[in-house]
Amino acid sequence: MNVDGTPYRTIWLAEDGWRVGIIDQTRLPHEFVTITLETLDQAAEAISVMRVRGAPLIGATAAYGLALGVRQDDSDAGLETAYQTLFATRPTAVNLRWALDEVSAAVSAAAAGDRVAAAYAKAAEICEDDVATCRSIGEHGAELIKAAHEKTGEPVNILTHCNAGWLATVDWGTALAPVYVAFDAGVPLHVWADETRPRNQGASLTAWELGQHGVPHTVIADNAGGHLMQHGRVDLCITGTDRTAASGDVCNKIGTYLKGLAARDNGVPFYVGLPHSTIDWTIHDGVREIPIEERDAAEVTHISGRSEGGEVVSVALTPAGSAAANFAFDVTPAALVTGLITERGICEASTEGLLGLYPERR
Amino acid sequence: MNVDGTPYRTIWLAEDGWRVGIIDQTRLPHEFVTITLETLDQAAEAISVMRVRGAPLIGATAAYGLALGVRQDDSDAGLETAYQTLFATRPTAVNLRWALDEVSAAVSAAAAGDRVAAAYAKAAEICEDDVATCRSIGEHGAELIKAAHEKTGEPVNILTHCNAGWLATVDWGTALAPVYVAFDAGVPLHVWADETRPRNQGASLTAWELGQHGVPHTVIADNAGGHLMQHGRVDLCITGTDRTAASGDVCNKIGTYLKGLAARDNGVPFYVGLPHSTIDWTIHDGVREIPIEERDAAEVTHISGRSEGGEVVSVALTPAGSAAANFAFDVTPAALVTGLITERGICEASTEGLLGLYPERR
Repeated sequence: MNVDGTPYRTIWLAEDGWRVGIIDQTRLPHEFVTITLETLDQAAEAISVMRVRGAPLIGATAAYGLALGVRQDDSDAGLETAYQTLFATRPTAVNLRWALDEVSAAVSAAAAGDRVAAAYAKAAEICEDDVATCRSIGEHGAELIKAAHEKTGEPVNILTHCNAGWLATVDWGTALAPVYVAFDAGVPLHVWADETRPRNQGASLTAWELGQHGVPHTVIADNAGGHLMQHGRVDLCITGTDRTAASGDVCNKIGTYLKGLAARDNGVPFYVGLPHSTIDWTIHDGVREIPIEERDAAEVTHISGRSEGGEVVSVALTPAGSAAANFAFDVTPAALVTGLITERGICEASTEGLLGLYPERR
Repeated sequence: MNVDGTPYRTIWLAEDGWRVGIIDQTRLPHEFVTITLETLDQAAEAISVMRVRGAPLIGATAAYGLALGVRQDDSDAGLETAYQTLFATRPTAVNLRWALDEVSAAVSAAAAGDRVAAAYAKAAEICEDDVATCRSIGEHGAELIKAAHEKTGEPVNILTHCNAGWLATVDWGTALAPVYVAFDAGVPLHVWADETRPRNQGASLTAWELGQHGVPHTVIADNAGGHLMQHGRVDLCITGTDRTAASGDVCNKIGTYLKGLAARDNGVPFYVGLPHSTIDWTIHDGVREIPIEERDAAEVTHISGRSEGGEVVSVALTPAGSAAANFAFDVTPAALVTGLITERGICEASTEGLLGLYPERR
């Protein structure tokens, strides 16, 4: 998508064919800074300190990180070291392990002199596959936005929560892919971006990427969505999901469930955009079975922003003695979800719906 | 309630019998500072810059402000000037006008030499009435907390939104009065305090006042309440209300509606604490009829907190070009409200329920 008029991806190969460019997302939204990765350790650091985030982008960065590692040492020992170094950065990230396994297998299968080339080729393939998947989610979801516009003739108001945009993937995003496809096709639309406390991915990342691409949007407190839906000011909700149960329950950023409730109460369609890689076919009751990560309370008690002087500083929001709790995700039951937008099309949020699109899972 | 072990009200008469003490709430939660008001203008400034806030406390401060004004000039012209000066501070605050009218009438009815004494007496009466009203809400509501504890034998988890505590009234609060009465009676309990973006009254004021009184509490992002209710970690919701429709719909801080939806979806009782002064008997459909104030977008795009150096600074959270919208309140339909806790008892959130407690309104 565009940054100040120039098309970008979140990760790319430099013109020299081996160095890897990324956007340092820790500097957003206050500064746009790109970084060039030249070593395994630089790639590992970028993942561990969250210069890159979002499951698909973590996978893509790990893939190129492994290629950089093999370039430094293409022996079996070198491959193993690179794998373990990258795996240790975010050991619970499913996509990370998957991407490392893919590249590792390609390297092991290659002839001695071709290992570096094989690693780069597989990393590139992982990136292109992600772009194609997201683009496809975008095309399917854009039909919903177009239909909403055709019904009223008015700009379509879409509410989203957290950041499931192109910054979380290689390009296009998941929840925001339909927005970009529809916007690029000229459908008039406007996005309500939940700020998404406590980490504020909506106020920072979603607002930034929509703004850079020129998409009309307004940042709102997470508290505001219910009021907007009560008053007919939301036509469609689209969120992402970190983990989708086989039953259609979706585990996404904390607060998504509250928007699902408000959508049902006001007859607003609530869609979730997802690549098949988020579907966990072993989970049949998301609320009961998906463990919810509790993160550092400091993310609730403190926040960072741009001071008047222009530097980014962290400030405390709560009284010194007060405890805080920080639940990272919640589960929106399938009954609240109007439909799942996947790379294969849109289906009902149910086992039958998902199996209809993924019959090989029957 | 207690501040560091010492009982306080939010407003009090100094020992000299004429100066008026208040807590400078703009300094909370980072500093506890009291101020002594000696003039009409100081009282007006305290209201307009929100050193005092909350409808009951604004009324009480205006009442004492008028007494200070009459003390400076007890002529009819002096009274009129004082009235207009105070009225201009927050012209839409219903309690402000009501308190000014009460004190003004008392002054006008008094003999020439007794006007100052009459003003102070009426201001004191307004304060005592507010304390009695809140204490009564507390006693009725505490029965719900006691009953919840008796059912399980466990500490009662209460979720609240925004600040409807003693800082918003003269003492006790509305939503938090039941918490203080139950806590003082030894009922084991714990409060989940929604931080309440964008102005963070929960993270700052509710957390501070609960902490000072020794009430166990945990600050959470506004997004977290649904998840907690899904997992049985909330026994009871209690919020305040700025305006209560005759139908039982409640207009309260933005985001209250989302908690009402989550409570219904999970079978968690949802109560609203209110003095009769918030009931608007002319409103019969809160969602359609109550206009919702839109406040400065800067409250969403910027936030202030305590820096590492200890000073309170404001930081920007959003990218420079992104718009923000700031809806201050929302309306929770009566159907989501389990009951209204008033100074006369608890009733169903309906016209019949309210008329049962206030039969003089039939």
